Amino acid sequence: MKGFQLTLYTQQNRRHQGKMLADWIVSQAMDMGLRGATLVSGIEGFGHTRNLHSHHFFEMADQPMLIILALTENECDALLKRLEEEGVTLFYVKVPAEFGLLGVPVDA
Amino acid sequence: MKGFQLTLYTQQNRRHQGKMLADWIVSQAMDMGLRGATLVSGIEGFGHTRNLHSHHFFEMADQPMLIILALTENECDALLKRLEEEGVTLFYVKVPAEFGLLGVPVDA
Amino acid sequence: MKGFQLTLYTQQNRRHQGKMLADWIVSQAMDMGLRGATLVSGIEGFGHTRNLHSHHFFEMADQPMLIILALTENECDALLKRLEEEGVTLFYVKVPAEFGLLGVPVDA
Repeated sequence: MKGFQLTLYTQQNRRHQGKMLADWIVSQAMDMGLRGATLVSGIEGFGHTRNLHSHHFFEMADQPMLIILALTENECDALLKRLEEEGVTLFYVKVPAEFGLLGVPVDA
Repeated sequence: MKGFQLTLYTQQNRRHQGKMLADWIVSQAMDMGLRGATLVSGIEGFGHTRNLHSHHFFEMADQPMLIILALTENECDALLKRLEEEGVTLFYVKVPAEFGLLGVPVDA
Repeated sequence: MKGFQLTLYTQQNRRHQGKMLADWIVSQAMDMGLRGATLVSGIEGFGHTRNLHSHHFFEMADQPMLIILALTENECDALLKRLEEEGVTLFYVKVPAEFGLLGVPVDA
């Protein structure tokens, strides 16, 4: 299948609708029937706000969070549109990708 | 060098030949003489099985695992073929990539 | 915005100018005014040196470190040039990418 590997960047201390924003996004992806999402935490980093978000030097709450998804073009557009409608501001990186399930017949 | 950044998705509780599947794949990559493989753990996620695999909410054993490799096209084909022959079922994402060693002369 | 997702691979025990190399690179990226960098640690892995760097089996110090950046072509060239001038040797993977801030008007 062709599409994109989408990475969404947030921090552990960002919240949305009473949840950690990263968790909320993973739940949304699940509700939308997307094929998968993985949340990975970073040790430190900085983003467009010019602050250093760091596990080592500052507090845990600032820890960077990456949500990685494999999506068709339509799924990617739908997810980004959904996040925009919810007023979520975050940095995204979209990379052309080919993906699938290994070891499963194409028409399984 | 041109090729792919390949990401293989598994979970901490998946085993193959008496090893954690993720460790087994890293060992295979090493045995095949591939140039590198890195195992990264996720905090939570869900995959094609529709289960939420989570460090927070469920048990550690379900933790998502990502194996990231930089491969030429031939190496990528060989690794995926090897995994299929072993009957390994997993989700993969293949992204076109350029890679190399920085700070080393081309003919080193 | 178009450019690259650049991943730089190092280990926790590599040092440069009295700092952990990975931290030094994140600081450089910040000093160069790049838009962001995220440091992610791996659990285990091996690289061009054929050693298995592992959190589980060996010592923490060998833990793989990935620095992930979204960069325009010029920024990518400038960062790699800067690292080369500093005599830093590391493995890099460059992937074509489209990136931006979601939820912010284009002319914000």
